[in-house]
Amino acid sequence: MFIKLHLSFMKILTFSLLVLTSISSATANDAVLKQSEIKQLNELKNIALSSTLSYDLIESLTTEVGPRMMGTPGDELAVKWAVAKMSALGFDKVWTEEITNQQWLRGEAEARIVAPYPQKMVVIALGGSIGTPEQGITANVIHFNTLADLQAEKTGSLTGKIAFVSYRMAKHIDGNGYGKAVGTRVNGASIAAEKGAIALIMRSVGTDDNRIAHTGVMRYKEGVNKIPAAALSNPDADLLVNQLKRGKTVSFHLKMTSSIEEHIIVKSANVIGEITGSELPDEIVAIGAHLDSWDVGTGALDDGMGVGMVLAAAHHIGNLPVRPKRTVRVILFAAEEIGLLGAKKYMQLHNDEMKNHVLGAEWDFGLGRIYQMKTGVGANALNAVRELAQQLAPLGVSLAPQNDANAQSDMSLLSKAGMPSINFSPDGSDYFDYHHTENDTFDKVNLEDLQQNTAVYTMFAFFAAQAAVDFRK
Amino acid sequence: MFIKLHLSFMKILTFSLLVLTSISSATANDAVLKQSEIKQLNELKNIALSSTLSYDLIESLTTEVGPRMMGTPGDELAVKWAVAKMSALGFDKVWTEEITNQQWLRGEAEARIVAPYPQKMVVIALGGSIGTPEQGITANVIHFNTLADLQAEKTGSLTGKIAFVSYRMAKHIDGNGYGKAVGTRVNGASIAAEKGAIALIMRSVGTDDNRIAHTGVMRYKEGVNKIPAAALSNPDADLLVNQLKRGKTVSFHLKMTSSIEEHIIVKSANVIGEITGSELPDEIVAIGAHLDSWDVGTGALDDGMGVGMVLAAAHHIGNLPVRPKRTVRVILFAAEEIGLLGAKKYMQLHNDEMKNHVLGAEWDFGLGRIYQMKTGVGANALNAVRELAQQLAPLGVSLAPQNDANAQSDMSLLSKAGMPSINFSPDGSDYFDYHHTENDTFDKVNLEDLQQNTAVYTMFAFFAAQAAVDFRK
Repeated sequence: MFIKLHLSFMKILTFSLLVLTSISSATANDAVLKQSEIKQLNELKNIALSSTLSYDLIESLTTEVGPRMMGTPGDELAVKWAVAKMSALGFDKVWTEEITNQQWLRGEAEARIVAPYPQKMVVIALGGSIGTPEQGITANVIHFNTLADLQAEKTGSLTGKIAFVSYRMAKHIDGNGYGKAVGTRVNGASIAAEKGAIALIMRSVGTDDNRIAHTGVMRYKEGVNKIPAAALSNPDADLLVNQLKRGKTVSFHLKMTSSIEEHIIVKSANVIGEITGSELPDEIVAIGAHLDSWDVGTGALDDGMGVGMVLAAAHHIGNLPVRPKRTVRVILFAAEEIGLLGAKKYMQLHNDEMKNHVLGAEWDFGLGRIYQMKTGVGANALNAVRELAQQLAPLGVSLAPQNDANAQSDMSLLSKAGMPSINFSPDGSDYFDYHHTENDTFDKVNLEDLQQNTAVYTMFAFFAAQAAVDFRK
Repeated sequence: MFIKLHLSFMKILTFSLLVLTSISSATANDAVLKQSEIKQLNELKNIALSSTLSYDLIESLTTEVGPRMMGTPGDELAVKWAVAKMSALGFDKVWTEEITNQQWLRGEAEARIVAPYPQKMVVIALGGSIGTPEQGITANVIHFNTLADLQAEKTGSLTGKIAFVSYRMAKHIDGNGYGKAVGTRVNGASIAAEKGAIALIMRSVGTDDNRIAHTGVMRYKEGVNKIPAAALSNPDADLLVNQLKRGKTVSFHLKMTSSIEEHIIVKSANVIGEITGSELPDEIVAIGAHLDSWDVGTGALDDGMGVGMVLAAAHHIGNLPVRPKRTVRVILFAAEEIGLLGAKKYMQLHNDEMKNHVLGAEWDFGLGRIYQMKTGVGANALNAVRELAQQLAPLGVSLAPQNDANAQSDMSLLSKAGMPSINFSPDGSDYFDYHHTENDTFDKVNLEDLQQNTAVYTMFAFFAAQAAVDFRK
């Protein structure tokens, strides 16, 4: 008890010292931003807050393109859409960077409880899964509360069975329940196969109570038998648990026509556009999102919101009378959902240029307002980011005390390669209600929240492109 | 303005007089309920508030039976389930009353926007609709904001077109948006057909934003060409509206394999059970719900909740040391969804007995707590129902000043035939998020709200069976 109190006290002390340090350093040094730049930041804020551009872009993407998984017509259309939009929005340069991959076909999925109480199940194939034999699989269900419980099962003990993991994802503002739930989706099939299972079914990685199942990528472990993997909608997982609770053997039928088409090579592309810097054009401020989506829903949130915000942010900056010093590069990554394929390609093509990526941020989570900014910059840039934080504070954005942030999603690869990064945390409480489902549609986008978030990204990108400071570590 | 103020003042005056009358009459006359009966009412309240019986019954019905549309195996199973539960719960008499009808088969429904921007649509056949030709229908969409707009269209003006009504149902605690929206579902197809349309599509009658469409019964007008009728999920209706907004011709494909099988006669049955009265066994207090559901979801709310509540209420009363004076009759009506078929049969079979139905109530709306009680009883019974209201007040139930209530749903036919009725109004704000969809599942049932509502029905049924008053008009 004493130790705990002591630690708490130390934490408070440390935090107080940090705050004091922040304040003193912010006042002791000369400001990085000029008054004219602060004025421009606030003009950009007002423009973004009153513009519907990011909203209209998402409406356009979801209405005219819709779902856009790599290998589908929608993805091809999305690349054309993005090139056309960047050109129309006045970007100085626009180009694409092609990627290829083997095709995965979702096909159809259907499932039902056969016994003791026959009922239909709402189910979706996990992305990358193989299908079942043509007649489907009918087998008894063995129930695990967690992936760890499945992992603890003896090898061979599930021979001929369907493994079912019913772990329930928790809802949090920062989406931290996802990391605890997603392991079953990604690795569950091979873990179940190692125990002898012939299929994996799981409660969806999602926080809703809709009879709509959540897809998302899964991977097979090399050398392990590939088995089909599917997610049940959450009410269906509840129903299956309720039948299992009665202690009777539960027989389950799963039929999926999904397939990995190794011989069919499909293409996609990163779509990249720049507002070229006026003084330091080789120094790149990177703002990104991913252009692809799953093939369910219209990808309004994942990641239409990001696409709309970064395109609008660059447009607002490009509309200023004078270009900022550095280049603002918008990267719309290809094929994020199936394994960061566009980001990997980007790393290959821009490896030499990576040291010129002076600061970056990606939006690929959440739908509510940004409430926090986390930095991962060189120590000499901390005063500068504090000045940005001061400008963002009226929008309800606080500055996290740590300076260890990595960029999200695709840009995590750029962060790992040394790119300084800012991570903006939006309210993601409801994000996993919709994530990777048919429910990821435009009606979930709130105009005012989006305007606020677009304002943050616009101010951030302008600040990073203009501030007389080196953000690098 | 003056007139309005004057009227408002009159309303206040009238209301005040009503309140004063209530209070004075309640105090001036002898109480109907004896102290021992009030004690029993409160014992029943405590039993119902602490029992999970109604919840367990809904769990059982949704887990072991599931969807139960007339003509499906689930409905047959539901009848057996209800008979078995009534017997197990100690009812004094249990019987069924068979009904027959022609079969309607849902089949499969699929739809997509063909042009200008191809996209899949989530769609469901309305109950009773015919299907499309085998190859489906592909035609241009003509958009109407309301059924009145469609109605105002000239005869023949929609020849070869698909009529689309995008009316958006509003959310209210008492569900009053339903009446304004449901006309398109029930009558829209024939109205569209009269104008020459070859199909009707509509925004779902529902208040959610889920990509799950709402079914529900539709009817064809005699002498009018039958056309297929389907509802789009609300996000899909939004997407279609967004494409239409661009002013381009929108081509739509609809394929439905629904069919009316006039030659196939299917059966179902009302399931009825009684706790027989100790002194006036021929006088019937009727509490009801409908046993059938749509073939989507598991009918947890519509009307599993009602089934659970009225079964539990009768059981709690039957568990008292002494039967109340009158008979408590639980009626689980068949085939409500497709047109009150069970209720119509009940009226045929019990017409002579209708004068002995001394008071009735049905639950077929809402999922939140009951906040109001509306009466439709003889004037000489008003004091008695005020005494019941006093006992229900601690549960948050107020007494509406009017005395013109009819029972809901199936029992509306009994009300019309003269049965005095009580209508309990629950919070139905979210009811039409789930109504007639796959989302009508057990996880939406809140135990504490259900316990409270079960307590109200239990107290009501005991009161009606025991009070020394004639409720008839």
